[in-house]
Amino acid sequence: MDTLLLKGLPVSQNIKLSLKKEIDSLRNKNVIPTLSAVLVGNDPASQIYVNSKHKTFINNNCKSTVHKLDEHIPENELIDFIYSLNNDSDVHGILVQLPLPKHLNEEKVLEAIDARKDVDGIHPLNVGKLLRGIPDFISCTPAGCLEILKYYNIPVQSRHVVIVGRSNIVGKPLMALLSQKFKIGNSTVTICHTGTKDIKAYTMQADILIAAIGNPNYIDANMVKQGVDILDVGINRIKDDSEKGYKIIGDVDYDSVFGIANSITPVPGGVGPMTITMLLNNTVKAAGRTIS
Amino acid sequence: MDTLLLKGLPVSQNIKLSLKKEIDSLRNKNVIPTLSAVLVGNDPASQIYVNSKHKTFINNNCKSTVHKLDEHIPENELIDFIYSLNNDSDVHGILVQLPLPKHLNEEKVLEAIDARKDVDGIHPLNVGKLLRGIPDFISCTPAGCLEILKYYNIPVQSRHVVIVGRSNIVGKPLMALLSQKFKIGNSTVTICHTGTKDIKAYTMQADILIAAIGNPNYIDANMVKQGVDILDVGINRIKDDSEKGYKIIGDVDYDSVFGIANSITPVPGGVGPMTITMLLNNTVKAAGRTIS
Repeated sequence: MDTLLLKGLPVSQNIKLSLKKEIDSLRNKNVIPTLSAVLVGNDPASQIYVNSKHKTFINNNCKSTVHKLDEHIPENELIDFIYSLNNDSDVHGILVQLPLPKHLNEEKVLEAIDARKDVDGIHPLNVGKLLRGIPDFISCTPAGCLEILKYYNIPVQSRHVVIVGRSNIVGKPLMALLSQKFKIGNSTVTICHTGTKDIKAYTMQADILIAAIGNPNYIDANMVKQGVDILDVGINRIKDDSEKGYKIIGDVDYDSVFGIANSITPVPGGVGPMTITMLLNNTVKAAGRTIS
Repeated sequence: MDTLLLKGLPVSQNIKLSLKKEIDSLRNKNVIPTLSAVLVGNDPASQIYVNSKHKTFINNNCKSTVHKLDEHIPENELIDFIYSLNNDSDVHGILVQLPLPKHLNEEKVLEAIDARKDVDGIHPLNVGKLLRGIPDFISCTPAGCLEILKYYNIPVQSRHVVIVGRSNIVGKPLMALLSQKFKIGNSTVTICHTGTKDIKAYTMQADILIAAIGNPNYIDANMVKQGVDILDVGINRIKDDSEKGYKIIGDVDYDSVFGIANSITPVPGGVGPMTITMLLNNTVKAAGRTIS
């Protein structure tokens, strides 16, 4: 069968286009959607992510400030700094780039963010609202996955969604979202993880397979059924002979499942571009609320 | 095969015994674990539930106050009343009996409770902590289910748990709990609901089946496999010729699965007795924190 490529770019462009109207309208009311990103330490990957977010905000006529803090910052100082952003009415969204250095308690730090500015959707209050079925800010990668399913009209209702991976930023929020009685949801959801003995027994049943494991090419043709729709959320960096010295591949062996799957998100270029777009979307929403 | 009865009473007694020590020790420090239950309106079932909770607290040397509020109370008055309980240092746990009359926004009311006094474990902050894998107060019925599995040494790790029903008080928190890398957890979890087309296709796979549907005798021998462990969370009131005029039955056709299941919680007398015990447990925990 022809396998449809679920590219993120057109979905992302579509969302940015509708956000443009909102951003213009907010600017006319002297509100410029503003993100404050907090980067603790010098992790190179984190720096790349934060810079990329920053650029997206600037390119979309919004504001972004990156606060680079010393990797040894005491927890209470970091929390006080977050409080100052909570109290700054010019800041609509606060993003603390993860992972944090080990001396910092991630849960305590994230809980310090005002949930109304938690545009990353990872504050427990927002996570709890999501599980209770009344989501406010939804974690960006899961929200991006839903937008892809919606844009490409992939049926979701009553289908069996199998999620592999139970991370706080992908697997668990997607389990919470897709099992709700939502338009993009109402699926029977199975979650597999490192504790699952025979993962193939579950992935073979998937009408929609979501791979968020962080294990390159883990899922191949022997683990899926004909006609499955696949969201590959994996971003794995593999050394190669290219100029960059590496390439990015997903959790799914793309070549292997091609022709078997009904559709699949490519890596790169599938779910990836959606994450920052949803961060922009959440920040514009937060900014909009300050005037309504 | 012999089907083991997973009775709640010995589990509940065991927990109450260890709570007794904590309660005595707190009383020696002039702290009496205290629940404030809020009952809005005159729903007969709610009155029975609240009275039953009240009695359990009194019988276990704790304090309980039931606040009966008019069914037409305006939302802001109810929320102000909850705030007054939040600010009362003699109150350790606050329980708002559900369902609320229709003019009240349940989410808004529950969010008004100080999460540190949310001994019912349904405040979105506590629900979010649970999904993120760092639970604080766990919703009482799910917590009771885990205690039963633990007490009877039912293996949970790496087994396939199939949950039927996605309520905020049972199905969804159990999905969140059992999929975590916890001692009583680390299971592959599937959640089924009214949107699931062929429920039998999933229940047949269950190593542990949790029925929380509210549909009497819905699950029978044709829907389970030999050796399954069953938690029946259903409480359905069925008219009969008895003096009371009704009997309580579960979601599982008990007689039908007997001899096929490895174990099953009876209804009544299985999960039921655990709920109030876990409420007591949470309240004692909340009280203990006020002196530590």
